[in-house]
Formats: sequence, C-alpha cells, structure tokens
Amino acid sequence: MNVAVMGYGTVGSGVVEIINKRDLGLDVKYILDLRDFPGDENASKFTKDFNDILTDDTVKIVIETMGGQTPAFDFVSKCLAAGKHVVTSNKELVAEKGLELITLAKENNVNFMFEASVGGGIPIIRPLTFCLKANNIRSINGILNGTTNFILTKMIRENMSFADALKIAQDNGYAEKDPTADVEGHDACRKICILSALAFGNHVYPKNVHCEGITKIALEDVAYAASIGASIKLIGTAEDRGNGQLYIVVSPAIVMAESQLSSVSDVFNAVLVNGDATDEVLFFGKGAGKLPTASAVVADALDCMEHDNNRRPIFWGPEKPELIMDYQEIPNKYYIRLKGADKDAICAAFAGATFLEGATDDIAFISNEVTENEARAKVSTISNAELCSLIRVARC
Amino acid sequence: MNVAVMGYGTVGSGVVEIINKRDLGLDVKYILDLRDFPGDENASKFTKDFNDILTDDTVKIVIETMGGQTPAFDFVSKCLAAGKHVVTSNKELVAEKGLELITLAKENNVNFMFEASVGGGIPIIRPLTFCLKANNIRSINGILNGTTNFILTKMIRENMSFADALKIAQDNGYAEKDPTADVEGHDACRKICILSALAFGNHVYPKNVHCEGITKIALEDVAYAASIGASIKLIGTAEDRGNGQLYIVVSPAIVMAESQLSSVSDVFNAVLVNGDATDEVLFFGKGAGKLPTASAVVADALDCMEHDNNRRPIFWGPEKPELIMDYQEIPNKYYIRLKGADKDAICAAFAGATFLEGATDDIAFISNEVTENEARAKVSTISNAELCSLIRVARC
Repeated sequence: MNVAVMGYGTVGSGVVEIINKRDLGLDVKYILDLRDFPGDENASKFTKDFNDILTDDTVKIVIETMGGQTPAFDFVSKCLAAGKHVVTSNKELVAEKGLELITLAKENNVNFMFEASVGGGIPIIRPLTFCLKANNIRSINGILNGTTNFILTKMIRENMSFADALKIAQDNGYAEKDPTADVEGHDACRKICILSALAFGNHVYPKNVHCEGITKIALEDVAYAASIGASIKLIGTAEDRGNGQLYIVVSPAIVMAESQLSSVSDVFNAVLVNGDATDEVLFFGKGAGKLPTASAVVADALDCMEHDNNRRPIFWGPEKPELIMDYQEIPNKYYIRLKGADKDAICAAFAGATFLEGATDDIAFISNEVTENEARAKVSTISNAELCSLIRVARC
Repeated sequence: MNVAVMGYGTVGSGVVEIINKRDLGLDVKYILDLRDFPGDENASKFTKDFNDILTDDTVKIVIETMGGQTPAFDFVSKCLAAGKHVVTSNKELVAEKGLELITLAKENNVNFMFEASVGGGIPIIRPLTFCLKANNIRSINGILNGTTNFILTKMIRENMSFADALKIAQDNGYAEKDPTADVEGHDACRKICILSALAFGNHVYPKNVHCEGITKIALEDVAYAASIGASIKLIGTAEDRGNGQLYIVVSPAIVMAESQLSSVSDVFNAVLVNGDATDEVLFFGKGAGKLPTASAVVADALDCMEHDNNRRPIFWGPEKPELIMDYQEIPNKYYIRLKGADKDAICAAFAGATFLEGATDDIAFISNEVTENEARAKVSTISNAELCSLIRVARC
C-alpha cells in the first residue's frame, strides 16, 4: 500500500528507513519536505508540493512527522477529508486538534492514529484503548519526557545543579537549544492530555491543565527525598477522583521507593495505568529517538492497512472543562520544606507530619492529605516560617 | 453480541462479572460447567451440555476458561469450525495446540485470541503482535510466573528456604497444593513458547524447551548474587542468536541490578521485549488473579466483536525444531559456585572470572561467555572442585 511521509526530520527519515528495509507491504511514494536533501537515496520521492500527495488516489496512508500545528493541521485535515488514513507522531497536533481530527476521520471512515505521540516506541495508546478496555481507568501516572528525566537523574545521582545537568543534556543531544517545551513541562502536558482523553473520554486542552516544570527544583529537596529512598520526578497525572471529576496535572512529584516509577531513570519513559480490574500495569521503554518513535508510526500504518475498510474505534468527546478540578483543591500528601520554623509549631499545624533528615537547618516533612491551598494556609499560621518548597507526593 | 463462557472457575466467573457489570455490548447467554453453583445470580445461564453452545447460532463468541487440553481442545475446535470466535486464557491449550487452532480459525475466518494466556492482565500478546510489528524481535525475557517470583522474593528478602517460602505461598493461595507446574517451570515454559511463536513465527512445543524450576536454588547462591546487587529470578528466555537460530529456555538466572527485571518482585510478572527499532520495552503488572486475567479475556472478546467480519492476522507457522539450539551449547555468562577449589586454578580455567563475596568457604564467580558444556568441562579440570551451582546470567 502506498504511503506518503510529510516531514523528513528525525522521525520521518526513520519511518522511511524502516519501511524501505522491512517487507511489510508498505511503499513510500512521496516524501514532503521544503528542505533539500542532496544525495539522499530517496531523492526520487521528494516533493515540495503537498497537492502531489493530496490528489494522488493511490496514496492511502499519509504519515505526518512535521511537528507543530501549522501547516500540519491543515494538511492532515485535507488528507482525512480526502479519504486517506493519517498516522502522526505529533503530540501538539493531537493534544490541541485531536477532537477535530478524530471527528473528521470518523466522518470520512478512515483512521487517524497517533501511537507515537506518547512514549515514542512504547506501546501505550493501543493497549490503553483496546487491551484495557474492560477496565474503568482509575488513574494514569507517567514519566512522559525523557529530557527532564535525564536531568533529574543527574541531579539525583550526581548532586548536580539543574543548570549543569541541562548543559550536559544539551551537549548529549537530549535537550534542544531552547529547552522550554521540555523543562517547563509542556511536552509532558500534551501527552497526559492525550492519555486522559483516551482513558476518560473527553478532550483535554493543555491550557486547562496546571503545568509546572523542573526548573525550580532545589538540590536540598532532592537530598531530603533521598533520605527516605524517594526521588523527585516530573510526573504527568490524570486521575479519576470520583463522580467523573478529574485531577490532571503535570508537576514535579515525590515518588516513593516502592512506586514502579521510582526506578525509571535517564531518558526512559514509563506510563503506569491503574485500572479497576488490572490494578497497576506499567509500560516502559525509550520515550523518544528516531527508530523507536518511527517503529510506532509504522505499526500504526500497518494497522491502517489492516483496517482500510473498517476504521478502528478510537474516539473521544468534546472537552468538559467543568470536570477538571482545581489542582489546588485536591487532597494530596505534600512534601514541604520550611526555613525558620519551629518543629512544634509545624506539628500543631500539620498533624501527623513525617519529618525528613537533611543536612540543612531547614525543616522538611511529608504532610498528611491536605489540599495545596490548605497547606499554604497552614504554613502561614506558623510564625517566622518561610515556605521554600511544596511538592506533591505522587499517588502511585 | 452473545457470548458463552465455558468454565466457571476463578477466571470464568470474573469474565461473567465484568461483562454483567460493564455496558460493553456483550451478553452472556450460556455458562458451561459440570459443577453446580446453587444460589448463583447467573443460575438461568448455566448448562452442562456443550451442544447448547455449539448449536446456538446467536452465540458468536465462545470464551474458554476451563484450563487443560481435555476437553478444551475438542470444544474450542468445534466452536471455531462452527464459525464462532474463541477467546481463551488457557496457556496449556495455546502452547500445545495453538498451531492447529489458529489454522482452524483462519480457515473459518474467525478469531482465536489468547491475550490472557500470558501475563494475566498485562497487555503483551497484542502489543507484541501489532504495536511492535515494525521491529525484528531480538529477544524476550520474562518473569512469567507469579508463584515462583513470590517464593524467590521471600528467599531473597527474608533469607527463607525454598520449602518455607513455598509453604507461605500455599497458605496465601499463591501456590496450589500440588505446586509442580509452577515451581518446576512448566507454566512459565508454556508462556515463553507462546511468546516465541508470536515473535519468531514458528510454533514451539514445551517438550522441546529446556525447563528448569526453582526447587534447587540454595540460599548461598541468593546471598552471593546479592553481594553484587543481583538477584536470582525464574526467567523465560526466547532469543534470536542469529541465522534464525533460537535460544529458548526457562531456568533460574542471575539478574543484574541494572536489568529492568531486577525490581520485579512478589507475585508480579514482567515481560522485557528487545526489538531492533525500540530496544527494550517492558510490560509489567499482575500476571494472574481473577479480575486482571478476566479483563484481558473481555478485551479479546471486544476485539472479536470489532473484528467479527475481518479476522485479525494473528498467525504463525509449524514448528521448526532444528532452529532451537541446544541450550548447553549457547555462549553465556554463568554464575558458578565450587567447593574445595583453588582460586588460582579457577582463574587458570576461567580467564576473566569475577569473584563474588560470600559468607561460606565456597568460591563463587561469574564467568566470561562460555557454553554450559564448556563450563562443566573447565570445572572438571580443576582439581578437587565440586560443582555446587551453575546458573546462567540473564542477558537483559
């Protein structure tokens, strides 16, 4: 079956490489890219004109690996409307425009697939959609961004500052020159929005999700966490808190040693899905990279080929922002570090607090379940207390 | 869509419970069991006559959760031949009769699905078959049996003997009264045979796979392994060693601390798949239990419903026993413990051996890559050496 690949960057070139190498029944007919690739072995397939792809009825599957919303959204919409299946690795596109695109796919009886948009080569979209379908999903917690996990691993293992660890990540090609999307959590946020839509049935827009990156994590907090065998990870969480109310957030979180996420280090990703029948199921692997991500794209293309005349039921409904709870009003355990506070005063404000050992004069503790707003209010009652850190404890 | 459930044991009753509870488009029309279940809320659905199911054309999907080959093979064959989809959790049936049954399913254009036969509620069959399809699989290593993993965890963490740990497993309902199938590795062997067939394309019969259980593991070996942060796990391995030659074995193995399998404890299962595009991908969760396993069965039934008229391409070819290498002729690192041997003599026989710290007078070491036969021959050249233990080191 003929496919066209739009975007010949890291992932797109990996897709072409796998399709050319393996006898899978797929043939690359066009590669769309505005850049020139002199000497590339696929030279005869390049085009700069999207209409070559759109108007060629022999192209049944279009693979979008350009990234961003413009012109990806326009191109993908036109392909779906023209009755072509579309596969994408573009998490921004799915997180922002997924509802329109799955609706358009449904109307045109074609597939819109995006396994590679979350977790790179790790199977997660299809298992969550089909394998765990007999479950009501209770929660999803994931380490969804390899760059930040690499940086945090350096901070944890080598007591390195955020700035130094970021520099090493950039030198190793794990972080971009402008690392904002990774370190501020935007990339992880898009991914948890996609997973939440699949698990709970309604589109979730990144702008409605509280998203906090790792730039403010202090080495003191890393050390206090280590004193109880815990670590600080950037966790994307989507949790059903009952009555369909959702707690969706991306932020640093204290991960206890017994959590399946605690041993996920370096550039690896992992998604921990808690279902009412299966309990915890973990999916782990490389969350990025040329061939891992490309292999997920190609698997989607094969699924499109298998389901050329009978689209797969991947679907969710419009956003219900009223279901997304205010993250500051969700009861949770919190890690709190204070300067200048008296331990007895802390105990009076936070009954049942567990104090942590550390090398500084600060006092750090884990609270019982409180909302963030309650925690801040309690801190304000403690005389002379200066709040240095407040980090949620992951419930997984 | 009407389904019939054959076998109302742990898994079968869980399947009925999930289908009744969730609005999934499935209805249980018959439950086949020779036993009586007085007062059961599904009383009206029970039958003792298989022909009620076979001859009812409104039953499109038959779920087999009886276990064993007789009468399951006969019943399942007849259902497939009658044009009914069949879903099973029965690993013995799939490992021994899978080829006949997938062939029969293909001939009759129906689905034969068995996600629950490996890893209980953990999605693995479908991800391996579809999500990782763009990969050439290099190897699969799995902790595939929860009972033995529970026993080994007790031995490792509490320095408990095999016999004592088995007793606790039995008291907790994790091990059967006759624990042979678990502790001798037969259950894990069936599962690695199924995974190998899916990954490498040819049926593998358990009788052709070397299978060694955990009954002979000594606490000394657990302690020596712990001295380097390693642990002993029952590992099922199916590895492509090049030229299509397969190394398939179930046996205790030394798992190094950096392996993703090293932190898989208690009754949990995990399957580590190494693909040429994705590298290592891990699937982790509860490998057994009523609702986890039942949820995998129900997901298969939903897949059958989605693919009522277009069966999914799950298929492999006949056995090629000549591709399964003699496990004793495969180069591997080995953990070896000797009594009465001289360290210098060991170094002379095993160049590059890494010696382990331990509390006994024995000498334990990790060899460089040798075959088991070579290792035994080398040991025989060391004067006074008595071979106490020889355990492969997992390559994952």
